[in-house]
Amino acid sequence: MSNQAFEGMEKQAANHVPLSPLSFLARSRDVFGDRDAVIYGTRRYTWRQLHDRCAQLGGGLRALGVDQGDVVSIIAANTPEMVEAHFGVPMIGAVLNTINSRLDPETIAYILDHAETRVLITDMLFSNAVKDALARLDRQDIVVVDIVDTQIEGPGASSERLGQLDYESLLETGPALQDWALPRDEWDAITLNYTSGTSGRPKGVVYHHRGSYLMALGTIAGWSLPAHPRYLYTVPMFHCNGWGHAWTMAACAGTIICNRIISAEAIFGAINQHKITHFGAAPVVLGMLVNAPEEQRQAIDHPVKVMTAGAPPPAAILQKMNALGFDVLQVYGLTETFGHVVECVWRDEWNQLPASEQAAIKARQGVRFPVTEEVQVVNVITRDPVPADAESEGEIVIRGNTVMKGYYRDPEATAASFAEGAFRSGDIAVVHPNGYIEIKDRLKDVIISGGENISSVEVENAIYQHPAVSVCAVVARPSEKWGETPCAFVELKPDVTATEHEIIAHCRARLAGFKTPKHVIFDELPKTATGKIQKFVLRQRARSLKQT
Amino acid sequence: MSNQAFEGMEKQAANHVPLSPLSFLARSRDVFGDRDAVIYGTRRYTWRQLHDRCAQLGGGLRALGVDQGDVVSIIAANTPEMVEAHFGVPMIGAVLNTINSRLDPETIAYILDHAETRVLITDMLFSNAVKDALARLDRQDIVVVDIVDTQIEGPGASSERLGQLDYESLLETGPALQDWALPRDEWDAITLNYTSGTSGRPKGVVYHHRGSYLMALGTIAGWSLPAHPRYLYTVPMFHCNGWGHAWTMAACAGTIICNRIISAEAIFGAINQHKITHFGAAPVVLGMLVNAPEEQRQAIDHPVKVMTAGAPPPAAILQKMNALGFDVLQVYGLTETFGHVVECVWRDEWNQLPASEQAAIKARQGVRFPVTEEVQVVNVITRDPVPADAESEGEIVIRGNTVMKGYYRDPEATAASFAEGAFRSGDIAVVHPNGYIEIKDRLKDVIISGGENISSVEVENAIYQHPAVSVCAVVARPSEKWGETPCAFVELKPDVTATEHEIIAHCRARLAGFKTPKHVIFDELPKTATGKIQKFVLRQRARSLKQT
Repeated sequence: MSNQAFEGMEKQAANHVPLSPLSFLARSRDVFGDRDAVIYGTRRYTWRQLHDRCAQLGGGLRALGVDQGDVVSIIAANTPEMVEAHFGVPMIGAVLNTINSRLDPETIAYILDHAETRVLITDMLFSNAVKDALARLDRQDIVVVDIVDTQIEGPGASSERLGQLDYESLLETGPALQDWALPRDEWDAITLNYTSGTSGRPKGVVYHHRGSYLMALGTIAGWSLPAHPRYLYTVPMFHCNGWGHAWTMAACAGTIICNRIISAEAIFGAINQHKITHFGAAPVVLGMLVNAPEEQRQAIDHPVKVMTAGAPPPAAILQKMNALGFDVLQVYGLTETFGHVVECVWRDEWNQLPASEQAAIKARQGVRFPVTEEVQVVNVITRDPVPADAESEGEIVIRGNTVMKGYYRDPEATAASFAEGAFRSGDIAVVHPNGYIEIKDRLKDVIISGGENISSVEVENAIYQHPAVSVCAVVARPSEKWGETPCAFVELKPDVTATEHEIIAHCRARLAGFKTPKHVIFDELPKTATGKIQKFVLRQRARSLKQT
Repeated sequence: MSNQAFEGMEKQAANHVPLSPLSFLARSRDVFGDRDAVIYGTRRYTWRQLHDRCAQLGGGLRALGVDQGDVVSIIAANTPEMVEAHFGVPMIGAVLNTINSRLDPETIAYILDHAETRVLITDMLFSNAVKDALARLDRQDIVVVDIVDTQIEGPGASSERLGQLDYESLLETGPALQDWALPRDEWDAITLNYTSGTSGRPKGVVYHHRGSYLMALGTIAGWSLPAHPRYLYTVPMFHCNGWGHAWTMAACAGTIICNRIISAEAIFGAINQHKITHFGAAPVVLGMLVNAPEEQRQAIDHPVKVMTAGAPPPAAILQKMNALGFDVLQVYGLTETFGHVVECVWRDEWNQLPASEQAAIKARQGVRFPVTEEVQVVNVITRDPVPADAESEGEIVIRGNTVMKGYYRDPEATAASFAEGAFRSGDIAVVHPNGYIEIKDRLKDVIISGGENISSVEVENAIYQHPAVSVCAVVARPSEKWGETPCAFVELKPDVTATEHEIIAHCRARLAGFKTPKHVIFDELPKTATGKIQKFVLRQRARSLKQT
């Protein structure tokens, strides 16, 4: 009886609004319109100006015929255009596809084709690869828009224009959206992020508005973000939409500082010049900071909090970061989980430990974020949770509202990854007695090099194209600089020869530079009774190779 | 075509979890199980213990037959039981109804009847009124559970037990819930809060899990709450579920310090003893703090942030609070909006202003919270937004995910309040040129005294019961101590007499103390041509009465 009375009250416009990060942009425009939203060199936009430019972008895209559910791709550095695309594209119900600018032309072409891109916004710095990619595509209907950056000096400044119009003209093309609307359904797609998985071809991870909204609030709560942080955008926005931080900054009306150059000198300089309070970076960037020559470093005179992810950071680097005055939070997540879902929350009692022990703890992945519903480590066979004994290994599985809708146009892969009622991460971890998880290995064969995912299968496929190769396998080899690098094990065909240099050169002609193996070992490959290559044995061999 | 591909990805267990503040309790148990959750005198529970007690409460209630959608009422002070009820009741899908402990027996009886309460948890300190209320009810089926507080000394300690069992026995009654579940739908009701509206009878405001979840995250973002705040619960939890702060503390794993006694001495003492970092309080409590005799005050040696709401706080009190070292944030909201939806966000440039001007700004209501979608001030006739000129008055209307489901068993009132696609607050405000709103008057005739809502109609109804009264009207009269007090204007019938003292005594016999008029003025009432009483004229007269 009571039940019916409660159920009678339906959702309506007053009390149920689709969750979307676009709401945060609207609030920052209304409430903090005069505060700086984005700074990039001599360019500077307030939240009101940023909102208006996003509305112009939406209007311009609509004038080009982009409609609800259409895909707009972008290949760009972390410039204002990249930030604007994260709001302007979803403002018209379209889906933003950020493409990794380091990819090879064939993969770029594959993505543009698979995503059925309607408009491609491309930074002129990447014109060479993009031109090549477009040439491989059998499609004339993609509208190409060039980002022309007048602040670039040197070689990039003279790159070729590929498009029918440039970005600023696009903003002037259509009337700015006067009354853009939130999506009708918070489950609508907001972005499409291609990631290298276990198979050679990248899979398209689809984000929903609801998840991006909650990710922003969860980051504020989990990272204890104050109002108006000054955020240096060093994380490429083509990775998990830059960990969702553009939307997060809209939620706390922060200031985003853009910078194309990721170098120790540039980061230290920006921190002091712009009074940076927060930034995110892969461990490889942290390594760059702590190993920078003295003359490139600057003393930091104010607190700076750093979020790091992409690979477990070496304890030594964390210890040095701490000594430089940075407060580093290690987080863990995947493209499929909108980025970070686990954080190594610091406990006061650990302040008493020696610095090296503190760094070892900080290198663990930790505990779930406030908006992450469940993170479990399950035995790979029984699928039961492993004991919290710091020894029993299992696969990390994740459930929550910041898990993707699924893989784009790949219902089989989607069903497989969600089969257990949680997302299967493919990462192997242990659980410490205090509940903190620590990653030990990858179930999938992804190699993470300099923050980039590399599919071992894709590299193997390239090696297999060499006429002398009989069997090959590619695994991760630990690297102080890159985290990991691809290491190839090759069995040659009888009576033919090939050198390490030849195989590497062969791969370089077919793959992006970071995917090319750094080492090739010729040997018989260890196999199971059924002939399956035992990659775990190869990983051990790769680890035992001398560091270079 | 793309559209269909995106639409094919349906919600499933892995990526769509109902939003509920219960998730925050589960996380704090898992991640911060050993941290203090609640401290009350000699009692102290960690997050793991609090979780387990809530699960026991849920199990006990289920053993009593409480089912999905049933109402469990509670009349209690801010003790651990009250905190636990906010989690344990919704854990079994039931709806928590917190009843204002200051209400008169007739209103309590009305609420128990209207809510169809299945179980009533009642603090023995309020046994007198509750016994009276139960006697007025023609229902034998309500299970009554007494909260027996062994820490109370003095008169309250010997109060009568009313129930079949006491609270701690209830926890031992049923098996603790081993596997409580989130609601199947985030739109499910979580609480039922009766509020005095324009009519004499209180209306039941129904909250949903989704709103309470977002309210907690929005409070963290809007108030810049750090991890693990130490929160003194001075706001009665029967008002908007204590502004949702129990759920918020679960989201940031804070520590809730409970205290029955709301006095300057108790608050100052708790702040230093428990290193309180945050508390919420009505302006009347702030007044108590700043006007406390020297010997009751203590110097505060650490930063304390205070959220105040319930009535616009006098600038003089804010100035004094600031001088004592408190950082006060004034917020605005209503029971219908889960509490605070607008906050007076401070701007750095205001630090240069004289203290009195700063206090005047702090007394404004401000701008919307991060999770509040829209707050507008609309002309009461045309319903168009008023200009931001600090002069044009209009009604505040609110839209967002922290707006109630509706009024319980009152579809007409629900439809009326949501008719414009936003919730009509009934509060009259102006908009300053910087977008900050400032409340000027109440469209409805609610009087807010000491943080309590009083329906003028209810008071008028009581006065009308006096045989000598012909016409009467009750309006708010400003009070330094209480914010407002009820002031009655009375026209007597011909040839009869009554004194102010008689009318007040007559009301006191029928109403809760705080609802009893403090002044009665005998005069002819101003009326419109159609005979409607012009309350705005009476409000002006009430304001011009000498302060007492």
